[in-house]
Amino acid sequence: MAMSVPRYLTGDPAGMKEFLDKFDVFLFDCDGVLWSGDHLFPGTVETLELLRSRGKQVVFVTNNSTKSRADYKKKLEALGIPANTVSTHHNYLGQTSANPHDRITNKNPAPLKEEIFSSSYSASIYISRILTLPPNKRKVFVLGETGIEQELRSENVPFIGGTDPFYRRDITPEDYKLIAAGDESLLDPEVGVVLVGLDFHLNYLKLALAYHYIRRGAVFLATNIDSTLPNSGTLFPGAGTVSAPLILMVGRDPVALGKPNQAMMDAIEGKFQFDRARACMVGDRANTDIRFGVEGNLGGTLGVLTGVSSKEDFMEGPVRPGVYLDKLSDLLEAAE
Amino acid sequence: MAMSVPRYLTGDPAGMKEFLDKFDVFLFDCDGVLWSGDHLFPGTVETLELLRSRGKQVVFVTNNSTKSRADYKKKLEALGIPANTVSTHHNYLGQTSANPHDRITNKNPAPLKEEIFSSSYSASIYISRILTLPPNKRKVFVLGETGIEQELRSENVPFIGGTDPFYRRDITPEDYKLIAAGDESLLDPEVGVVLVGLDFHLNYLKLALAYHYIRRGAVFLATNIDSTLPNSGTLFPGAGTVSAPLILMVGRDPVALGKPNQAMMDAIEGKFQFDRARACMVGDRANTDIRFGVEGNLGGTLGVLTGVSSKEDFMEGPVRPGVYLDKLSDLLEAAE
Repeated sequence: MAMSVPRYLTGDPAGMKEFLDKFDVFLFDCDGVLWSGDHLFPGTVETLELLRSRGKQVVFVTNNSTKSRADYKKKLEALGIPANTVSTHHNYLGQTSANPHDRITNKNPAPLKEEIFSSSYSASIYISRILTLPPNKRKVFVLGETGIEQELRSENVPFIGGTDPFYRRDITPEDYKLIAAGDESLLDPEVGVVLVGLDFHLNYLKLALAYHYIRRGAVFLATNIDSTLPNSGTLFPGAGTVSAPLILMVGRDPVALGKPNQAMMDAIEGKFQFDRARACMVGDRANTDIRFGVEGNLGGTLGVLTGVSSKEDFMEGPVRPGVYLDKLSDLLEAAE
Repeated sequence: MAMSVPRYLTGDPAGMKEFLDKFDVFLFDCDGVLWSGDHLFPGTVETLELLRSRGKQVVFVTNNSTKSRADYKKKLEALGIPANTVSTHHNYLGQTSANPHDRITNKNPAPLKEEIFSSSYSASIYISRILTLPPNKRKVFVLGETGIEQELRSENVPFIGGTDPFYRRDITPEDYKLIAAGDESLLDPEVGVVLVGLDFHLNYLKLALAYHYIRRGAVFLATNIDSTLPNSGTLFPGAGTVSAPLILMVGRDPVALGKPNQAMMDAIEGKFQFDRARACMVGDRANTDIRFGVEGNLGGTLGVLTGVSSKEDFMEGPVRPGVYLDKLSDLLEAAE
């Protein structure tokens, strides 16, 4: 790909306006762009409103697998970000109710999820619609939180593990023997997939079981492999830290369904039918967000410095955004 | 190194006798060679007795950091393996009591530990005697079990973490904020080392803290980086699975003090003063045990197929033993 130098737009309202005019759709990474953990960055709401007021479609694309799309909708709303304000002349959501009152009163919340794409949703779609599993191997062993469980349920994919308290315990001498014997009380013979996301309750027993499922032939999938997750203005272990031990043990990488995997872009495009040339990916990570946009042949990519990647990463790294800003809300300068 | 083809000695008593005559000292890996988990391989005790009856010095060298040398002594004894039977004409242990009764009655157990070298001991020696730390940065944050704690105590190295129940819990929203703020209640400013071993109680909080200590400048050490640990005839997550998430997050490897790191060989040599040309390393893993012997310029290496490495690994891998056996007790054929 071209190794051009990204254009720095902070303090350049004319450049911003030119930039904004190129796009109809903005795909937003969330953590590190709109907020960090539970801390909403100042100006996020106003910036999103600015984009919408100019008729831009906003889509939230997150690798955070701990939340479902429904959870994300709640998080967005709790932070004061309306997750869906469909403008009539840019209605990419064919199935959205024509009556705006339905949305305002939240009586029909289903379409609201449609603006949100999470890696757990992408992974569930992949398992249910793309992966071909034998009929007796359709169960998924989950390392992860409720976000994955909810999305698997929404696609009618059977699963075990996840938040089941049975797995939230120390390994016992008996467990070793049962696992070694392939006992069905611990190793379900119907498991054909191990799906690894961020698991705040990762433990030795879960790792041992996931390893043995993969050894026995289960497909090794990950919602995403981000090394870190922004929270409270700093970084914490990301989903990649859950698959890293398994990668070391089995000697190969999982298929990761979140950004930058294009399975996620295809799913978004399938829903919105947007023109990729008129779409821009906004993110804080060069190697996931920006790569996702570049490899998806989007018209543009916008990096922000409020998350993981540094100015040096954007300016000198192997994957570079088209433009970058100190922070997303710098775009408000374009409104002045 | 020479890529010679290892000699297969099972069923070759003459070859075995020739092999045994070359060595005075045998360094034994334990898991996967003498036993698997709590299962002692048949013939292990008899094979060790055969070696000792021929005047060979036996040293147990283990990367399992969950046990201290004292724990290992207990394990060896519980499995029926006397950990120390010093023969008067091969007394490499200068400090051993001259009165064999002391050992038999176990009134003086200290010297018994001397036949055992563990990666937790090697790491403790490294921290206390080799690493130069500022006076206000001498504390170690431990990811691991009691074996590491005991060995750190034996070297008077202050530590936190480890088996402390405080760290065996879920991360809380408050923890995120305290960690982000660098609060001393969670991030001890005196921690200058993160030591990672196998931790059966690994969790998200511990990973987050270890990551932040390393980010703040702590030296990143590992007792060992074995991907797996044999148990019950199969494999379970090894110490490498505890450092893998941190390696992903910080972007570099720890200094690993267990096999094949030669800091461990140097420590063994410092204790026993043996002739490396007359010493043989026995192990089940090409990339740790056999490499340890090869890179330590020992006179020989013996691979056994009762653990991790396969015949193909030994025959065709990048690191190959001089000779190999189906199982250690095949050596008993040499006694017939």
